[in-house]
Amino acid sequence: MTTTMLTTLLVAALCCAGVLALENGLARTPPMGWLAWERFRCNTDCVNDPEHCISEHLFKTMADLVVSEGYRNVGYEYINIDDCWLARERDRRGRLQPDPIRFPSGIKALADYIHSKGLKFGIYEDYGNFTCAGYPGILGHLETDAQTFAEWDVDYIKLDGCYSHPKDMDRGYPEFGYFLNITGRPMLYSCSWPYYQLVSGMQVNYTLISEHCNLWRNFDDIQDSWDSVTRTIDYYGDNQDRIVPHAGPGHWNDPDMVLIIGNFGLSYEQCRVQMGMWAIMAAPLLMSVDLRTIKPDYKAILQNRDVIAVDQDPLGIQGKRIFKVVFLSEIVLERHPRFSAVSSKLVADHNNDKGIEIWARPVTPIRSNRFSYAIAFLNRRVDGTPTEVSVTLQEMGLDNPAGYAIRDLFERRDLGVLTPPQRLKVDVNPSGIVLLRCELQESRGFFGN
Amino acid sequence: MTTTMLTTLLVAALCCAGVLALENGLARTPPMGWLAWERFRCNTDCVNDPEHCISEHLFKTMADLVVSEGYRNVGYEYINIDDCWLARERDRRGRLQPDPIRFPSGIKALADYIHSKGLKFGIYEDYGNFTCAGYPGILGHLETDAQTFAEWDVDYIKLDGCYSHPKDMDRGYPEFGYFLNITGRPMLYSCSWPYYQLVSGMQVNYTLISEHCNLWRNFDDIQDSWDSVTRTIDYYGDNQDRIVPHAGPGHWNDPDMVLIIGNFGLSYEQCRVQMGMWAIMAAPLLMSVDLRTIKPDYKAILQNRDVIAVDQDPLGIQGKRIFKVVFLSEIVLERHPRFSAVSSKLVADHNNDKGIEIWARPVTPIRSNRFSYAIAFLNRRVDGTPTEVSVTLQEMGLDNPAGYAIRDLFERRDLGVLTPPQRLKVDVNPSGIVLLRCELQESRGFFGN
Repeated sequence: MTTTMLTTLLVAALCCAGVLALENGLARTPPMGWLAWERFRCNTDCVNDPEHCISEHLFKTMADLVVSEGYRNVGYEYINIDDCWLARERDRRGRLQPDPIRFPSGIKALADYIHSKGLKFGIYEDYGNFTCAGYPGILGHLETDAQTFAEWDVDYIKLDGCYSHPKDMDRGYPEFGYFLNITGRPMLYSCSWPYYQLVSGMQVNYTLISEHCNLWRNFDDIQDSWDSVTRTIDYYGDNQDRIVPHAGPGHWNDPDMVLIIGNFGLSYEQCRVQMGMWAIMAAPLLMSVDLRTIKPDYKAILQNRDVIAVDQDPLGIQGKRIFKVVFLSEIVLERHPRFSAVSSKLVADHNNDKGIEIWARPVTPIRSNRFSYAIAFLNRRVDGTPTEVSVTLQEMGLDNPAGYAIRDLFERRDLGVLTPPQRLKVDVNPSGIVLLRCELQESRGFFGN
Repeated sequence: MTTTMLTTLLVAALCCAGVLALENGLARTPPMGWLAWERFRCNTDCVNDPEHCISEHLFKTMADLVVSEGYRNVGYEYINIDDCWLARERDRRGRLQPDPIRFPSGIKALADYIHSKGLKFGIYEDYGNFTCAGYPGILGHLETDAQTFAEWDVDYIKLDGCYSHPKDMDRGYPEFGYFLNITGRPMLYSCSWPYYQLVSGMQVNYTLISEHCNLWRNFDDIQDSWDSVTRTIDYYGDNQDRIVPHAGPGHWNDPDMVLIIGNFGLSYEQCRVQMGMWAIMAAPLLMSVDLRTIKPDYKAILQNRDVIAVDQDPLGIQGKRIFKVVFLSEIVLERHPRFSAVSSKLVADHNNDKGIEIWARPVTPIRSNRFSYAIAFLNRRVDGTPTEVSVTLQEMGLDNPAGYAIRDLFERRDLGVLTPPQRLKVDVNPSGIVLLRCELQESRGFFGN
């Protein structure tokens, strides 16, 4: 039951030969870059709004800033177009073409420009008759379009799912992946496949999806609001046992653009939450912000190397929610199998059903079958004053006898070495996060090192 | 039916003599100041958290900063204690007393300190057996407590309503007001009366309340979140015909602390919204933020003199919501009687039930029976990119033939003089506001001025 039986003869044959599965060697860690959608949407009005419309000018400007403002140095590398780049019609030979007014130099020239900056270039299409905004989709043109993207030197393709049947996707997404593969050009393949199946009520076959896509969208588009960020976090927490096991080097869950950070709807604390939680979730870090106007505090969040290192940890194990305070003095809604049972001193206000959550992601270094961990304390309360969380390392399942060196990644402060029975106390701001890295210490054995 | 008949004989007699009604001459414009609650809550742990606990140290520190950081200069004058200042028991003579550890110098000394800074001093109590946090309430001690507050040189009293019967409030709040009055010391009187009646399902008699209180709380406590701010704004918009007419010099609706601005849960844009909308609503401006750590951008919002001038406009007419976009191309949910009917070019995204609202507050100068206006364009959308609003002055009811001089109060930019048929175009950021002052221009009549 791991593959659906709806494949065409051709594809079925190729599948059996092992050619269909994703073999591009990309995304060994979650991709990082810049993506237009959340901030610039489908603004095509270059006459009245030339600095914000979807145009080659916008992408070149953002590429310039990714380099000059230091984003490239910390790992951001893809510059990704989203919807609304296309002309309304294919060319006379049936090939996709960009809007001639907004992309007068063509897509290949834009890709060249971006490559000349030491960056990579991503594009958007849709497995359907139209893109979500009504531009030509790839249905009926899969091979041609894969070929076109390869000729344009595209490095990354996001394939959306508007105007197509979710039942066709178990066949169609692998099929387009196959055509991408046979171009010979490695192109990272980002699929909206599970999201459209989910909203249509289908069972989602994550095993199949993770064999064919480097990334996949599980849930709603992110919006510029705290409500949207928390709903996304809740979705991943509530469905973690089904979703999380499929993440790993080469194939990742994608909770959508991190990076409404620096825009209009999130406070500073909430921006830290998004960055920290996306790192815990091993999510792609795709900023969607105007890099011309972002303020320094927010840029610093996006460029925090310690937090990025959690996101990019080479083990590629996605984190999970290990505790959630639901009502007064009662905790432990769910437990990661790795973590021991716990009762704790955490207290939630009885007036407030939103309490403290603890999330954990196993990271390097590993020693003697034990992991280090990134731990996030997330405060969902809105009552104005910080909440103290007090918990022993043991209660969170951190049981290395020699202890862990602990660092607060946003405050950039080392908290010293703690052993499992020792108690960790942190003050977590309302709608805020404390993100710690707990690094395994070596036991001082008889033979030293 | 304008007064309830439940008054005691004494109070009834005094009422008929006209002594009961508020006669303190205060709050000719909405009060401005600093209030502990939203940010510091009931933190009584001065041992472990001496800089954030409710103590004389906290209020003296905030008073110092209100002066040294320029808040006093722009109008903030009250320094207000909220709950959790009391000892658990009254003294041997039955009088209220502060917690001796946290207020070792006593309340009179604290009031003196605050007065020495050119500021005024506010305190909190509760018309019930206990305050909301369980400290002694005033029930059974009304006269003594009013006298105590006068002896302490209190300038402002917030009287909460936990642990009392909402049905008793129509008698009890006026009764305590009477005892305040007969002390001879003018003390601003802030009542939670309508809120507790509302939540218990009673009809609220705003005519009575506005005769006896300088301020009254209509709705939920504000929390440190955009959700809380927008629910409050919606409540005032949805109930404006019932609530707004009772506001005016000496007596104001109180949507609670403005000023979660600069704390944890609001973005910069959302802080502007709170400040701007509270000014439109003629609300008290009571900051509840740690003035030691607030960042300059947020301080500038709190100290924006143009916005404060709208709040403090001497006419004291509370603003109303005049338009609300509810779905695609359909607007005009409600209309202020002063404003003419309209159809407009405003467009709301069909994916987003939260659109653009326009609020208007009549302000000075007045000429020939026409008002000037403060106009707020509020964007409830969260879709990442600004929304253009295009509307003529006439469509908003601004019909002065000589036009209006228009100024953007947050951007501090003059937009020139527009006449009624001219079209105003503004870009409103997601979860953001554009606040304009539209000042009447004089007609150039034959006789000049």
